[in-house]
Amino acid sequence: MDLSAEPHHDGSPLYCSTQAPQLGEEVTVRMRVAADDPATRAWLRTTYDAEPVYLEATRTADEWWEATVPCHSPITHYRWLLADDEGAQRWLTAAGVTEHDPSDTFDFRLSTHRPAPAWTKDAIVYQVFPDRFARSAAADDRETPAWAKPQTWDELPSYEGSDDRTWLGFYGGDLDGIVEHLDHLQELGVNVLYTTPVFPAESNHRYNASTFDAIDPLLGGDEAYQRLAEALDERGMHLVGDLTANHTGDTHEWFRAAQHGDPEKREWYYFHEDGSYETWMGYPTLPKLDHTDPDMRAAMTEGADSTVARWLKPPYFLDGWRIDVANMSGRLGAIDVNHDVARTIRRTIEEENPNGWLIGEHNHDASTDIDGDGWHGTMNYSGFSWPIWGWLRAPETDARPFGRPVPVQRRGGGATVAALREWRARYGWRAALQSWSILSSHDSARIRTLVRDPALHRVAAGLLFTLPGVPMIFAGDEIGLEGVNGEDSRRPMPWDRRDQWDTETLGFYRRMAALRHEHVALREGGLRFLYADDDRIVFLREHPEETLRITADRAAGTFDVTQLT
Amino acid sequence: MDLSAEPHHDGSPLYCSTQAPQLGEEVTVRMRVAADDPATRAWLRTTYDAEPVYLEATRTADEWWEATVPCHSPITHYRWLLADDEGAQRWLTAAGVTEHDPSDTFDFRLSTHRPAPAWTKDAIVYQVFPDRFARSAAADDRETPAWAKPQTWDELPSYEGSDDRTWLGFYGGDLDGIVEHLDHLQELGVNVLYTTPVFPAESNHRYNASTFDAIDPLLGGDEAYQRLAEALDERGMHLVGDLTANHTGDTHEWFRAAQHGDPEKREWYYFHEDGSYETWMGYPTLPKLDHTDPDMRAAMTEGADSTVARWLKPPYFLDGWRIDVANMSGRLGAIDVNHDVARTIRRTIEEENPNGWLIGEHNHDASTDIDGDGWHGTMNYSGFSWPIWGWLRAPETDARPFGRPVPVQRRGGGATVAALREWRARYGWRAALQSWSILSSHDSARIRTLVRDPALHRVAAGLLFTLPGVPMIFAGDEIGLEGVNGEDSRRPMPWDRRDQWDTETLGFYRRMAALRHEHVALREGGLRFLYADDDRIVFLREHPEETLRITADRAAGTFDVTQLT
Repeated sequence: MDLSAEPHHDGSPLYCSTQAPQLGEEVTVRMRVAADDPATRAWLRTTYDAEPVYLEATRTADEWWEATVPCHSPITHYRWLLADDEGAQRWLTAAGVTEHDPSDTFDFRLSTHRPAPAWTKDAIVYQVFPDRFARSAAADDRETPAWAKPQTWDELPSYEGSDDRTWLGFYGGDLDGIVEHLDHLQELGVNVLYTTPVFPAESNHRYNASTFDAIDPLLGGDEAYQRLAEALDERGMHLVGDLTANHTGDTHEWFRAAQHGDPEKREWYYFHEDGSYETWMGYPTLPKLDHTDPDMRAAMTEGADSTVARWLKPPYFLDGWRIDVANMSGRLGAIDVNHDVARTIRRTIEEENPNGWLIGEHNHDASTDIDGDGWHGTMNYSGFSWPIWGWLRAPETDARPFGRPVPVQRRGGGATVAALREWRARYGWRAALQSWSILSSHDSARIRTLVRDPALHRVAAGLLFTLPGVPMIFAGDEIGLEGVNGEDSRRPMPWDRRDQWDTETLGFYRRMAALRHEHVALREGGLRFLYADDDRIVFLREHPEETLRITADRAAGTFDVTQLT
Repeated sequence: MDLSAEPHHDGSPLYCSTQAPQLGEEVTVRMRVAADDPATRAWLRTTYDAEPVYLEATRTADEWWEATVPCHSPITHYRWLLADDEGAQRWLTAAGVTEHDPSDTFDFRLSTHRPAPAWTKDAIVYQVFPDRFARSAAADDRETPAWAKPQTWDELPSYEGSDDRTWLGFYGGDLDGIVEHLDHLQELGVNVLYTTPVFPAESNHRYNASTFDAIDPLLGGDEAYQRLAEALDERGMHLVGDLTANHTGDTHEWFRAAQHGDPEKREWYYFHEDGSYETWMGYPTLPKLDHTDPDMRAAMTEGADSTVARWLKPPYFLDGWRIDVANMSGRLGAIDVNHDVARTIRRTIEEENPNGWLIGEHNHDASTDIDGDGWHGTMNYSGFSWPIWGWLRAPETDARPFGRPVPVQRRGGGATVAALREWRARYGWRAALQSWSILSSHDSARIRTLVRDPALHRVAAGLLFTLPGVPMIFAGDEIGLEGVNGEDSRRPMPWDRRDQWDTETLGFYRRMAALRHEHVALREGGLRFLYADDDRIVFLREHPEETLRITADRAAGTFDVTQLT
């Protein structure tokens, strides 16, 4: 499938005069066409207050059309219409060229809401699941709590639902353990550490917090968190936390008070008359929070005294939050205050730290929830992980799917490009760029187990670093750790078994991260697909300063980056 | 393009156990597949609070899968996943089968909001532009107002923008003129009369109302409107009005008071400090209303004393409203209270007349504005008119486009079916069914001028009556009136020149309307495309009681409806 002659436009600097327009600002947008493209007239179609408006474009050079679009609304939609002298018309949307008159679904979008902070453009994120990353010596002195099932560091995690070690198996990784291994992160090229929750909780994953007012003493407590923040700051690295806006643990002080009859706290949750309550997906350990309650918001999300604010302040200086199950937060059947939740958290972050980052977890379609005044972006499973998984997965693999009853299907490069385009179109250029590209996470199988082949693992990693979006590396992927599903993927880092590390892949991750840091086109450039067949995907990253061509070959297991200009 | 073996589902009674589910209700949904379809497992994928959930389906017969979907949210999304033993997967969305993992964009939808009133399912709407339909004898006695440029009935309208007769050319049609010709409507099979505005205004189109409290004396005044309502009621016909929720005329009593300094009324519009004000698309005669003002709402849209309510009550008993530029109402740059406007009007209508209908004009993409608790449906230009125009338009035609700088492109049946599917998918089955299918209107060219050929006009009319959606006939289409654009299309009905009527086409309209009244499958049945090539489109309308096959042939100029069961 030769795509090189297709008209192209995206939201990057080569094609758009600004990535952060103001309301009312006129943005110059450009469309590239083949030099022999038959179009003799072109228009930019936008809407004013939902009424279509056509603005004539000018052919400024053989390969370029240019038009001006006013940012009439906070989110301004547009697409291109090309016409030739024979009466043929083509629409160019963010999903590609369309042969019929399309809906506004895949329109390009300009958002006048504030973009994510500038430093996030250069981010490479490293995800740590604290119980499994590293143990400091101090961990040996801590008493194992009653709920925990102790595990030795070299054991594999249990991942059968019927085995309660899945949630309670306790390895004792801690925050000082992370501090001791920051060289590893820095050598890898990482500049953002994102840890899954660090609040006390009666599980190894800590998504069922007992309080939001302290760091788990099993991780070293508040002081260790402070040491981690300082150590990162000294290295010029950022720290992102993880917060369950949707629920607390059933051991949480708020929930216990509610269960003991505190009338105010009962309003913070959804209690039924029979004493039962709404939860996350039916788990009684995860009671759901009611974001319509102003006192709950004041404690959790809103204002300077909230949980959201507290950890952004000295001495922790958190640089942002990843919000757990952001998609469900504030949603319950007929109730939907999700956008209010997102806006409230965003406002609180901006008040405390204008450079704070806000990523909402969404494991399917976040298109109506991002690019506004809420989440800056999402964990882009749908628009990145599943398409790449589908292209590179081994025909036979033990890797279990994430959130669906059948494995992600193995598909060719054409369908993969179609999926990448559709999702990027739905999210909008900027929100997609601000979202996290993910090959594995603590919730998914490991990419290595999925592709089986180290060479294909590197092809996947190559795409992680060269497609638009912020690369997020789940700790251990870079050395070839395995895992058939999210729980199995939470394997401890084998610091003492270096012989088991895939150092070739580690070297490839380092080179790719360095390449990304070196080339603005990889961080901020446009994305133009040139070619796709079953086994090969070729695309450009284009920026006014340089153009790079990327070739990924599934059959050969090769990945190439060539600087063209 | 043979589509007959594709899996199929839609929102009709054969495929969905209810068209009006309640919140929390479990709906049984069925998918039809070819008898030799390779799927061995299937799931219905829905979301609970934006979290994906897979519900296993059962193959109940060779050609049928069945699943149950709970209406967890007011709008419940779902689609189907089919898997075979070889690992191949297909998604079935409302836009068809997808070869990659799609976004939720084209998911099927169930709305638990109240559907349009039952009588609308059987509706065939006739649109009358009162100045041009018919003159009663009383019209001769009325004095022509100062603003008007009198025209004789047999003159053609002026349609050049520079000629002020376009807006001021006055033919003197009136409401008693309509009453005198109701036999024509009834013989045609019409059961709903929709008139463009009948409030006093200083133009022939009356979209710039001077008041909403009286019917234009030039049309016969309140008494004539009452006579029209009674005459329709006697025939069991319904009456739908036309209201400009977006603006008034600059001669409106509210606006005049505002201009004369009434501080309360100034808040009803968007005045700037320099005395200028916001308008519809820059026309100073059409000042834009501010729906955030509660007093304006009380006068216009909200509650028993509002304009919306007043005309639904005795002695007028209006059966509903078509809202002019509904898409723009309540939208102005960063302000967007459009859904509030729609909800308010809907609530007022339901309070006054639970059987009232509410149609919002939207000339491009209404997908985010319908199927909820606002507009029941839209004037479906995008999802019906443009695709059908594109398929049937003459290669050369004088017809001018509507809202775009180039004519609708002539396209083949494949692209036409793709467009019909995409738009239906975006609107959802029920909202599309409740929307008006339109071949021409007072805002567009006439279908006859567009297709040129009477046989193709009849193919278009065949599709109007047999595709899902409420047929709306612009008065005169049925006898082959011409018009190159909206203004030219507002030609007076040539009652006295019957020799100019295309009686063959009129007969076809009558037969098609009768067929629609006869067959529930044409009114409420599912839509399954069987085949499309450049010149031919074949589809089924399926209902538990009967199945009809429709074949439209552009090259032969033929249209066939065959009852299969």
